[in-house]
Amino acid sequence: MDRIWEELRKLLEQARALEEAGILFEWDNETLAPPEAVEYTARTMERLSEMYFALMTGDRLGELLEQCGDRERPEEERAWIRQAEKKRRELSMIPAEEYGAYAGLRARASALWARARKNKDYELFAPALEEILTFKKRFAACRAAKGQSLYDAMLEEFEEGFSTEKLDRFFGLLKRELVPLLNRIREKGTEIPWEFLKGGYSREGQEKLARFLAEYVGFDFSRGVMGESAHPFTTALHSRDVRFTTHYDDRVDHSLFSVIHECGHGIYEQGISPLLAQTAAGEGTSMGMHESQSRFYENMLGRSRAFWEPVYPRLRELFPAQLGDIGAEEFFRAVNRVEPGPIRIEADELTYSLHIMIRYELEKGLAAGEISVADLPGLWNEKYEEYLGVRPKNAAEGVLQDIHWSQGSIGYFPSYALGSAFAAQIYGHMEEELDMEGLLRAGKLDVIRDYLRDHIHRYGKMKGSREILLEMTGKEFDPEYYVKYLKNKFGRLYGV
Amino acid sequence: MDRIWEELRKLLEQARALEEAGILFEWDNETLAPPEAVEYTARTMERLSEMYFALMTGDRLGELLEQCGDRERPEEERAWIRQAEKKRRELSMIPAEEYGAYAGLRARASALWARARKNKDYELFAPALEEILTFKKRFAACRAAKGQSLYDAMLEEFEEGFSTEKLDRFFGLLKRELVPLLNRIREKGTEIPWEFLKGGYSREGQEKLARFLAEYVGFDFSRGVMGESAHPFTTALHSRDVRFTTHYDDRVDHSLFSVIHECGHGIYEQGISPLLAQTAAGEGTSMGMHESQSRFYENMLGRSRAFWEPVYPRLRELFPAQLGDIGAEEFFRAVNRVEPGPIRIEADELTYSLHIMIRYELEKGLAAGEISVADLPGLWNEKYEEYLGVRPKNAAEGVLQDIHWSQGSIGYFPSYALGSAFAAQIYGHMEEELDMEGLLRAGKLDVIRDYLRDHIHRYGKMKGSREILLEMTGKEFDPEYYVKYLKNKFGRLYGV
Repeated sequence: MDRIWEELRKLLEQARALEEAGILFEWDNETLAPPEAVEYTARTMERLSEMYFALMTGDRLGELLEQCGDRERPEEERAWIRQAEKKRRELSMIPAEEYGAYAGLRARASALWARARKNKDYELFAPALEEILTFKKRFAACRAAKGQSLYDAMLEEFEEGFSTEKLDRFFGLLKRELVPLLNRIREKGTEIPWEFLKGGYSREGQEKLARFLAEYVGFDFSRGVMGESAHPFTTALHSRDVRFTTHYDDRVDHSLFSVIHECGHGIYEQGISPLLAQTAAGEGTSMGMHESQSRFYENMLGRSRAFWEPVYPRLRELFPAQLGDIGAEEFFRAVNRVEPGPIRIEADELTYSLHIMIRYELEKGLAAGEISVADLPGLWNEKYEEYLGVRPKNAAEGVLQDIHWSQGSIGYFPSYALGSAFAAQIYGHMEEELDMEGLLRAGKLDVIRDYLRDHIHRYGKMKGSREILLEMTGKEFDPEYYVKYLKNKFGRLYGV
Repeated sequence: MDRIWEELRKLLEQARALEEAGILFEWDNETLAPPEAVEYTARTMERLSEMYFALMTGDRLGELLEQCGDRERPEEERAWIRQAEKKRRELSMIPAEEYGAYAGLRARASALWARARKNKDYELFAPALEEILTFKKRFAACRAAKGQSLYDAMLEEFEEGFSTEKLDRFFGLLKRELVPLLNRIREKGTEIPWEFLKGGYSREGQEKLARFLAEYVGFDFSRGVMGESAHPFTTALHSRDVRFTTHYDDRVDHSLFSVIHECGHGIYEQGISPLLAQTAAGEGTSMGMHESQSRFYENMLGRSRAFWEPVYPRLRELFPAQLGDIGAEEFFRAVNRVEPGPIRIEADELTYSLHIMIRYELEKGLAAGEISVADLPGLWNEKYEEYLGVRPKNAAEGVLQDIHWSQGSIGYFPSYALGSAFAAQIYGHMEEELDMEGLLRAGKLDVIRDYLRDHIHRYGKMKGSREILLEMTGKEFDPEYYVKYLKNKFGRLYGV
């Protein structure tokens, strides 16, 4: 038995090493690699993926998994085996030759997306997106259960148990409740001054602030690094090497909340039990739960009055020319100002889920073949006009703004809205258990982090998001928390 | 035949992808990875190496190589196959289980070395070095031809055809010729002012200068990047992704010549034929030839009067407070000042090979078992006192100054001295073909680079260093060029 386990462990560690190499190449591609390397790196990724695929779907691994079974091993190892079996099942449904080619395509497509975005030229990216979509639809068709739609199969990849049926209901609720709230705010017409957030914030100052805030909220730099990229993201090789990026522009709040957001992801990954490190169970349990942590940090904590009480003086010290005359309350109001705009990652908390709804509707149409890649920019702009009342000036602030589709993440976006709703439920529950405002005011972010670690992070994929929510809050997922939270916060802020 | 070739190519590309992943992890370890990741990364490297080893020594590759043979394929592909066969032969001599463990050890040992160097504490590193040495000796014993010494087998890894017998002669010549020259210079006692090279050179200014010089000498940033690390180095995933590092301290000449040196390596790698990219033949042909290019750029070009004529004004612009009153001739003399010191990478051109000689003697003793790891710091210091008249103040400026042994590069150091001698021979030949000084004065570094590319770089491993030297200069390796070059340059500079 022990020899079987040892052999199995080694095979799975090899598979993980290949995955980690892929993660490192992706990180490097986004943050450092020279432009001419793209095609070559794509080939490397293709070969690494082929090896991973061969290993994971190979006969020997199958035999070992069968012999090893689920018996008598510690809980973490059983979770590892369960996840490996799941991965193996999923991969076995995909034709071998397509899997490697798809990895190469993704590396190329991300680079094309970056160039297209820079040149504001959708046509540069469209053929690659077409290819990505074709692959994703084929993979989804391989994986789909009987009668399951392609988009539902895609959604499963990121958040199990949230089909279009549930999501239609969820987004329906948000639309019903939030659009009228947004309209009341617009009608009232209260202007919140915010111009001081823009202009003259030096790169150096923003970088210093980013490092300070990351450490302040609990990101551990002995186990992680911060980088810079066009589109901020977080990635992890394992819990001892967690990486996030940010980018700097002329609005200090953009980089600031982006950092807090990514740190939410990073703190999740850093908090996973070391016993799960470098195993298939050593990742966040789902994309929805991951986004719940990033949006919890960004919004529930980062956009609260109490959070800034101890921190704002430090911010003012860093930027005396910009913030010398601005009080903490003014700052708090400015960073919560509701203002529909074209860019998702710059959206305020209230309009944010409308951005997601647009992507959800478009993805659903793409997967069903009702929308073509060529239709996308036009439909994108129409929907922005309809839901948010703004029209993107060009493709870079329209359909090209997000990296996700270029990386094959179709079906990911709903996780953002779900994550926000999970976060509200978690926050609502934590308020009953802890004096959240008191902790924030006292700068005791470690108590909050440790609570999340104990109830969510450490489990990695040992528990699903439904199980975590249920055990933690005593309730099934309930989007009413989210609606209530937003109505409460923005109702008060705008007096509507 | 074509199907066999296709399968072979794919297997070799997979092997190369694993190597590239290892290269990227090493780069990342030295430049970015968080401290706590070390142990985990070591495991990943171990697993990747195991897979590489299994692939390269596997039966299928053997069959394909036999069937494919050497026939009818383009020259580049034949070189690729030859190199793959050579690698396979070498690896097949090593026990499988040791190969992966060795890769993990190297990753850990580099990190330990860095910590030991920082703490000036040799004891921290000694056990890892002991392990490295044990592995290297075992591998060398596996590879050694009958009657070949272990150190000779180690030397072969880096420069074929240069055994201890040849190197003893080579270093004997240098000792005979250079030590008296050094003594004449010391006796004469001419003081060359150099203090203006130290103090107040901002990091930003040095970084700007580094980028400027790199581009000026011909490094192509569309196919490469510059980073920062404790110990400057160059590495390449392939000719479209070449990376070098530098480090900044209080002496502007340290970073400046380090950059030109590393760019010599980088330009070599960038100049390899694209037809060899990502193949086993797509690297510099030997370490000696590699160092010939770095030292050619650093010394023959970079420490010449003619080089600085068009560039010095730019340098003065960057640092007006430091160099405003210093003329080009004073600068030229200062950066060529002979001054024995404890640090190899800061050594002047004349004493440089004495640093190498010390390492050569120590490595020879280590490999033969005549010197133990525990003896090393003491012997190191004694030899520095004997050959250079300086005694390192601590282990960081003594035995811990170089990263090489921690990475398993035992037998590498002689390449530096050989490289300098190759470079002198190449320069001597090029002076007959081109107006070298005129080109330098006109800033036409591209002509020089293209000449090197045509005669050396593009071949990768298609030709060995002996063949390259012979075809290029019409002569076998001749160390007299080097001695003559040094006597000429420093004789004039010091009037001795």
